[in-house]
Amino acid sequence: MAAFSFNKLVIFGVGLIGGSLARGLRERAGVAGRIVGVGRSGASVERALELGVIDEAAALDDDAALAGALQDADLVLLAAPVAQTGPLLARIAPFLDARTIVTDAGSTKTDVVAAAKSVLGERVAQFVPGHPIAGRESSGVEAALPELYVDRNVVLCPLPQNAADDVERVAAMWRATGACVRRMSEAQHDRVFASVSHLPHVLSFALVDQILDSPDAELKFSFAAGGFRDFTRIAASSPEMWRDICLANRAALLAELDDYTAVLARFRAAIDASDGAALEAAFARSRIARKEWQERGAIKPSGDIAAK
Amino acid sequence: MAAFSFNKLVIFGVGLIGGSLARGLRERAGVAGRIVGVGRSGASVERALELGVIDEAAALDDDAALAGALQDADLVLLAAPVAQTGPLLARIAPFLDARTIVTDAGSTKTDVVAAAKSVLGERVAQFVPGHPIAGRESSGVEAALPELYVDRNVVLCPLPQNAADDVERVAAMWRATGACVRRMSEAQHDRVFASVSHLPHVLSFALVDQILDSPDAELKFSFAAGGFRDFTRIAASSPEMWRDICLANRAALLAELDDYTAVLARFRAAIDASDGAALEAAFARSRIARKEWQERGAIKPSGDIAAK
Repeated sequence: MAAFSFNKLVIFGVGLIGGSLARGLRERAGVAGRIVGVGRSGASVERALELGVIDEAAALDDDAALAGALQDADLVLLAAPVAQTGPLLARIAPFLDARTIVTDAGSTKTDVVAAAKSVLGERVAQFVPGHPIAGRESSGVEAALPELYVDRNVVLCPLPQNAADDVERVAAMWRATGACVRRMSEAQHDRVFASVSHLPHVLSFALVDQILDSPDAELKFSFAAGGFRDFTRIAASSPEMWRDICLANRAALLAELDDYTAVLARFRAAIDASDGAALEAAFARSRIARKEWQERGAIKPSGDIAAK
Repeated sequence: MAAFSFNKLVIFGVGLIGGSLARGLRERAGVAGRIVGVGRSGASVERALELGVIDEAAALDDDAALAGALQDADLVLLAAPVAQTGPLLARIAPFLDARTIVTDAGSTKTDVVAAAKSVLGERVAQFVPGHPIAGRESSGVEAALPELYVDRNVVLCPLPQNAADDVERVAAMWRATGACVRRMSEAQHDRVFASVSHLPHVLSFALVDQILDSPDAELKFSFAAGGFRDFTRIAASSPEMWRDICLANRAALLAELDDYTAVLARFRAAIDASDGAALEAAFARSRIARKEWQERGAIKPSGDIAAK
């Protein structure tokens, strides 16, 4: 496998995800190319520039700056909230070189691909959909880490229109940060993450919401312990981001939610019927699966690293 | 407040909970009295004896040994699964001194009180219901720690029949281990823990169960990350213990489960209607409440300490 290199990488949204890619490529992989950050307001990219995470900052609303940023770019990463993918691509499209490969870091893929096709038309061949499975509870460029992607999965959902070399180029970029690249269809991606990430977030938010509406909320919170802490850690996630994910992955999430509600109804019936054997059997197989998952060491044990 | 002391403490079930009480009183508080462990099989109490956690071991099925163990006991702690409370009290009752105070460590209280009243009749005045809110994922006497109860809540649910001095004696015992003693009615206790502990466990088991029944379970597990890990940590809990808790706290748990299902239905409707504002508002208030709870420092940050 050839070493990864580039002349110019342009990152739209230099926060935790975009900033960690920049730092990973530069500080961890020692890749030499120029890194340009583009942001909505000047503030976050200026901060990224101050911190040395990027070499150059450009404002999204400045045509000349944007054109300059995109000129001769090898790669573009969109690292903004998924709902902005369409508008962002529409803003970029007029300035986009035919040789530039665009990828993204969005938590959902079916909607991102639809937006890309709608905005780019035939030029969607330049767009390789991606999703790095990494995050932290803290956000912003200050939270960016060169090693954020080490041993983490990055999912690519290549389109039939993509050139194999372009897909490989994006894969090589992520591998250079220490990530493990895996491929699947966008539909499969959205089903998988609706199940193991989006649904648990909704369930966790819902538990806190329920307690807040109960008459003895304060008493309940005062006795909540370790089980509650872990179950609801993800209920401290960004409301805007999770609103966007719920809407972007609406169909897959609703399917998982309905499926989950059916499981809960089964559990409810067993509790109601005092069917201890059914409960124990269900709990036991969950426990075994959860333990096996943990033992497989699929993810790092750090308490700080969260699923996006 | 007078320092706590005793001549003889008898612990039924010397595992994590009972063992940690023994170690806390002896190693942390330096209390001098004799500690007797009673177990169903000889094995676990023999191990506790080997480890020096208790001074003397007795087998539950040996009348003479049991009578000897209970003779002149100041205090008895029942630290066996809640479903065993009734049978255990029935076994103990014939050998119980009138001056001995009995308490328990059960995760549910309405059912424990009902069992105690049914078995002990008027002698229920000797029984002070309790629940130390502490645990670890590991169980058994090997996992017992002298500091398990430091800064943890212990709930007592005194009965109208209890003598105030007896309740205070049990409270003093737990305070000697470093715990903070709080009082509430058994109904209130069961509502609170159904909400912040029992329901989250059921929800967590249910998520793993759902994934196991899905056609792409392996793929899903392979992409599960930090959010999944924390949400499902409690799904690795003991199936027997959680079966018993679900059945013992059936009424309160069903009420919480129905309430939660209603919240989920609201969230589902908002997702289905693409009502971003409603989702964001619900997520935002949950996030604020979760963050405030965390900042209040209600519990220790260790990842190892779990709600029971």
